[in-house]
Amino acid sequence: MCTWLVSNDVLDLVGPDARLLYVGKTAGYHSRTQEEIHELLLSFAEAGATVVRLKGGDPLVFGRGGEEMDFLQQQGIQVKVIPGITAASGIAAELGIPLTHRENAADPDSTLVVYMGLATLPSLASKLMHHGLPLNTPAAAVERGTTPKQRVVFAELKDLANEIASAELVSPTLIVIGKVVALSPFWPHSSKEASCLMEAV
Amino acid sequence: MCTWLVSNDVLDLVGPDARLLYVGKTAGYHSRTQEEIHELLLSFAEAGATVVRLKGGDPLVFGRGGEEMDFLQQQGIQVKVIPGITAASGIAAELGIPLTHRENAADPDSTLVVYMGLATLPSLASKLMHHGLPLNTPAAAVERGTTPKQRVVFAELKDLANEIASAELVSPTLIVIGKVVALSPFWPHSSKEASCLMEAV
Repeated sequence: MCTWLVSNDVLDLVGPDARLLYVGKTAGYHSRTQEEIHELLLSFAEAGATVVRLKGGDPLVFGRGGEEMDFLQQQGIQVKVIPGITAASGIAAELGIPLTHRENAADPDSTLVVYMGLATLPSLASKLMHHGLPLNTPAAAVERGTTPKQRVVFAELKDLANEIASAELVSPTLIVIGKVVALSPFWPHSSKEASCLMEAV
Repeated sequence: MCTWLVSNDVLDLVGPDARLLYVGKTAGYHSRTQEEIHELLLSFAEAGATVVRLKGGDPLVFGRGGEEMDFLQQQGIQVKVIPGITAASGIAAELGIPLTHRENAADPDSTLVVYMGLATLPSLASKLMHHGLPLNTPAAAVERGTTPKQRVVFAELKDLANEIASAELVSPTLIVIGKVVALSPFWPHSSKEASCLMEAV
């Protein structure tokens, strides 16, 4: 499936036996509703097909990829997300704009991503909680993310620094703090065991 | 040149005639200072070589890619930035965390990226200025970014909505608002002509 945000160069890579279905959106006109897209994905998957949901940019940045992933997983369909180059990166490269980020005030509804933040995490976590971020805000620390050596610590914000220390995570580690972390299928469900260490298999 | 953030799978793509130089950093130990990296890039480029500065992630997200680009351009070296998959996207895909973003309060030192924001821009710009973002904050609106049909409007925040309307930009358009926009080599230098339309060539 494709949208017009996907270039012909990419579509040329599609194998000759694949069936292509356009479910894209242009401003003001949706060729399919989101519910129809969900049902299409499900029916092809249940029929035994390998389904690629092809999107422009990154599927988890404003792409409704999160909803589609969530829906399919609830139906027992195995989903693998392939990250992409989000429009912010593509356009920053095109225009030569360095995308320097800066920590904003603690906001329980936003997602904070900290690059290379192991050393500053203890004081950062204290500051965030001091500025009103709930103690039980879900968080993940990911060592060597996306590599075969990936290790992940899930914890509530108040426990994160200790759990990272216990697991002896080393650089490079990326930290994600915010409600969305609990949407991960790997987030520990029992509230008594909010912290866990996940190693790559 | 490579860092250990770059996987062997990627290094295997390097041609047999290329000279590889490791200038990477591991926690607490830098094999080269940033100044040495600048000078290395410059001296190879001046010797006529095509130099690839290979990085993990996206070069303009915390990668010092902005500094290196800036330094080389000041020395008259032509630079092309290839965007990459930033660690936030890679790890969100790995863990199944939807990276939903949310607009924060106006902060003159941060960079605001608005996806698909044409319709909301006029009221968004008013709100941002009302909350203290300076009227002359640099901004760019990019229609069909990174495609051959790319069109860019540069303008100060106070003029952005009008300039977008004059240029008749259509969806998909990504908007970047913040000081960093003026670091683009395409930003119009004359303060009297702060707005301009750039079309792909």
